[in-house]
Amino acid sequence: MQVAKIIELIGESTTGWEDAIQNAVKNASTTVDHITGVEVLNLTANVQNGEVVEYKANVKMAFGVRDNR
Amino acid sequence: MQVAKIIELIGESTTGWEDAIQNAVKNASTTVDHITGVEVLNLTANVQNGEVVEYKANVKMAFGVRDNR
Amino acid sequence: MQVAKIIELIGESTTGWEDAIQNAVKNASTTVDHITGVEVLNLTANVQNGEVVEYKANVKMAFGVRDNR
Amino acid sequence: MQVAKIIELIGESTTGWEDAIQNAVKNASTTVDHITGVEVLNLTANVQNGEVVEYKANVKMAFGVRDNR
Amino acid sequence: MQVAKIIELIGESTTGWEDAIQNAVKNASTTVDHITGVEVLNLTANVQNGEVVEYKANVKMAFGVRDNR
Amino acid sequence: MQVAKIIELIGESTTGWEDAIQNAVKNASTTVDHITGVEVLNLTANVQNGEVVEYKANVKMAFGVRDNR
Amino acid sequence: MQVAKIIELIGESTTGWEDAIQNAVKNASTTVDHITGVEVLNLTANVQNGEVVEYKANVKMAFGVRDNR
Amino acid sequence: MQVAKIIELIGESTTGWEDAIQNAVKNASTTVDHITGVEVLNLTANVQNGEVVEYKANVKMAFGVRDNR
Amino acid sequence: MQVAKIIELIGESTTGWEDAIQNAVKNASTTVDHITGVEVLNLTANVQNGEVVEYKANVKMAFGVRDNR
Amino acid sequence: MQVAKIIELIGESTTGWEDAIQNAVKNASTTVDHITGVEVLNLTANVQNGEVVEYKANVKMAFGVRDNR
Amino acid sequence: MQVAKIIELIGESTTGWEDAIQNAVKNASTTVDHITGVEVLNLTANVQNGEVVEYKANVKMAFGVRDNR
Amino acid sequence: MQVAKIIELIGESTTGWEDAIQNAVKNASTTVDHITGVEVLNLTANVQNGEVVEYKANVKMAFGVRDNR
Repeated sequence: MQVAKIIELIGESTTGWEDAIQNAVKNASTTVDHITGVEVLNLTANVQNGEVVEYKANVKMAFGVRDNR
Repeated sequence: MQVAKIIELIGESTTGWEDAIQNAVKNASTTVDHITGVEVLNLTANVQNGEVVEYKANVKMAFGVRDNR
Repeated sequence: MQVAKIIELIGESTTGWEDAIQNAVKNASTTVDHITGVEVLNLTANVQNGEVVEYKANVKMAFGVRDNR
Repeated sequence: MQVAKIIELIGESTTGWEDAIQNAVKNASTTVDHITGVEVLNLTANVQNGEVVEYKANVKMAFGVRDNR
Repeated sequence: MQVAKIIELIGESTTGWEDAIQNAVKNASTTVDHITGVEVLNLTANVQNGEVVEYKANVKMAFGVRDNR
Repeated sequence: MQVAKIIELIGESTTGWEDAIQNAVKNASTTVDHITGVEVLNLTANVQNGEVVEYKANVKMAFGVRDNR
Repeated sequence: MQVAKIIELIGESTTGWEDAIQNAVKNASTTVDHITGVEVLNLTANVQNGEVVEYKANVKMAFGVRDNR
Repeated sequence: MQVAKIIELIGESTTGWEDAIQNAVKNASTTVDHITGVEVLNLTANVQNGEVVEYKANVKMAFGVRDNR
Repeated sequence: MQVAKIIELIGESTTGWEDAIQNAVKNASTTVDHITGVEVLNLTANVQNGEVVEYKANVKMAFGVRDNR
Repeated sequence: MQVAKIIELIGESTTGWEDAIQNAVKNASTTVDHITGVEVLNLTANVQNGEVVEYKANVKMAFGVRDNR
Repeated sequence: MQVAKIIELIGESTTGWEDAIQNAVKNASTTVDHITGVEVLNLTANVQNGEVVEYKANVKMAFGVRDNR
Repeated sequence: MQVAKIIELIGESTTGWEDAIQNAVKNASTTVDHITGVEVLNLTANVQNGEVVEYKANVKMAFGVRDNR
C-alpha cells in the first residue's frame, strides 16, 4: 500500500480524551477501512456551571488507500 | 451528535475576505449539511498590474456527522 | 510608561472582522484605559443554514499600566 | 453577549490531566461566571524518584463578559 | 472556478521524496480531477537495518471544485 | 520565469485590512514590476480613545525576477 | 497550591532585555503576590536615529492563586 | 545544580496517555537519575480493526546533570 | 564581517527540489556576492494532468554585507 | 507614512545579543533611513574550545518608506 | 518494546537531501540499534561561489530501547 | 566531518542569559568535544519576592561526530 489519506475529526466524550478519540475512531471506521492511527491536534473541553461537561479532541486520522494507478 | 468532521477549502472573492469565506461556505453547503463554523488558516490575494484583484481565504470548516456506531 | 499589559478577548460581529475587533476594543475600553493596539490571533465565523452569520476575532490587546514601583 | 474574555491558568492533579483541568475550571469559577470552555495549551508532569507525581495542564479558558457599551 | 478543496495524503517511494509526491498525485488523480498543486507538510523515512528503505511525504493537495451555487 | 523574490511590507489603512494590503501593493508596484500575490502574515490595529483608528497588515509579496543566468 | 494563573506583560528598559523583564516583574509584584517565574515570548527593540534606544520583552508571568474551592 | 539536560522519548500504553508517560519515565529512570519533569510534545495512538489499541506520548524529559566545571 | 543579510526567494525546477534551490542560488548570485547558505522554508509543486510538472522551493538565503560603520 | 518595509539581518557581537542587534541596526542605518524597530527571530552563538565566542541575533527590521503613489 | 528514544542529527551530502539523511542514518547505526525511522526538521544547504556545494538535513531519529523495568 | 549531533540543555545563571548559555556550553564541553554552536529555544527566569533571581536558557547544542562508517 503506497498511499495513505489523512482526515480530520473531532471526537467528544463526557469521560475523557482517550474516550473522545475512541469515539472518533469508531465513528470513522463505519465508513473507512484500514485506519492505522490518530494524532492529536488539539484538546478542548466544554464547561457548564463551573464543571467540565465534555472533552473534545481534534485528531488527524490516517488510513490506507488502494494504489490503483 | 458526538463526532464532527473537518474539511479544508479555499474561498475566493473580488471584494474581500469575508465574502471569500461566504463563497466557500455556500459552495460546501450544497453537498454537506450541518456546517457549524469556519476557522481561517491563511489569507492571500492575487495581484495584477499593481492592484489586488482577488482575495483568497484558506479555511477549515466543521460539520456534524451522524454517530452511527 | 515602562510596562504594558496584554489581555486576550474575542470580539463578535454580524458584519465582518473589522467590526468584531471594534466591538472588542469598545467593550474593553469601558473598564481599561490607555489601550494602544490589538493583534489578531485567530479569525473564525459561525455558520447557520449554509451562511456565515457571525464573524469572530480572537485578539490580544495591549494597554499601558502605571509604573508604580 | 458579544464579547468573551480569555484567561490562562495551570491546573494540577495527582491523578491525570482531565482532573487537572477540572481543578483549574472549579477554581476559576469561584471568581468568574459564564465559563464556556477550555483549550489545552501544554501538558506537563512533575517527576520524583522515577515516578510521575503530578500532572499539570496549561489551559486557556473563555468566559462571556457583559457588553456594557 | 471560485472554490478549491484541500486534501491531505502521504505518498511513499523507495527512491526519494520527489517520487513519493508523484505517487501521491498519481494515486489521487484517479479519483479527483483538476489537481493544481501540492504543498509538503512533513518529510519522513522508514529505516531498516541501518538504511533508509522508504521515503514518505505528507502533502496537502489542492483541486478545483465546480461552483454550483 | 524561473525565480521569484519575496519581500515583506506593512500596509496601513483607516478603513480595513483589505484596503491596507491594497495600499501596500500599490506602493510596492511603483518600484517593483510583476507582483503576483500577497500572503498575510499578521493583522494588527492601532487604538486611540477606545476606538480602532488604523488597520495594519504585515504581508509577504511575491514578484517575478528575470532569470539572467 | 493547586492552580496558577498566567498573565502577559511587556517590560521595557534602555539597558537590555534582562533589565526589561526585571521591570515587568517589579511592576507586577506591586499588585500580584507569589510570582514564580517568567517566560519570554518575544524580544523587540525601538530604534531612533540608527541606534537601539529601548529594549522590550513580552513575557508570560506565572503566579500561584489560592485554591478556594 | 546549574545545568539540566533534556532528552526525548516515546512512551506507550494500552490504557491511556498518563500511563504512557509513566512508562517512559520509569524506563528512563533505570539509567538516568534526577528526572524532574516531562513535557508532552505529541499525543498519538495506534488503531487496529476500528479501535484504539495503543496510546503513545512523545515527551521531553529534563534531568539535572552535575556541574563539574 | 559582522552583519549578514537574509533574502527570500522561490526557485523552480522541472526535475526536483535540489535543482530548484540551485536555480535560486545561481540567479541570486548574479546580483549578490558572498552567499553563504540557504534554508528551506517551504516545498511545493505544480500539478498538471495528474503529474507533478514543476518543483518549487521557498528559501531564505544569507549573504555577508560589508560592515561600513 | 502609510507603508513600512521589513528586512531581515543577522547581527554579531563578541559581548552579547543586545550588542549584536546594535551592530545590525548601525550597519543597516548606513543605507536605510527611518528604521523604527527590530524584532528578534532567533538567537544563536558560535562556540570554540568550549566557550561561546560570538553571539548572533537574527532580526526583522522595520523602516518607513515614502508613499509615492 | 514499549519505549522509544529520539535523537537529533544533521546529515550532510554533496548530492542531495536523500543522501544526507542516508549518511545520518548510517553513521548513527554504527552505535545505535533498532533505528525505525527519521523525520526531517530542517533542510539547509551551504553555498560557495554561487553554487550549492553541500546539502544538510536536520533529522529526528527514533530507535527502540529495551524496557528493563 | 559529515554528521553532527544535536543535544538540548538548560543553562542557568544569576546574572543573565549570555552567562546562562556560557554555563551550559562549559558544562557540556567537559564530556563532549567539537561543540560548534548553540541555538536558543526558550528563555525563562525564576522569580522570588518580586525579583528575578535566576535566568534560564533552553539551548540546542551542535557538535561534530566522527564519521566511522
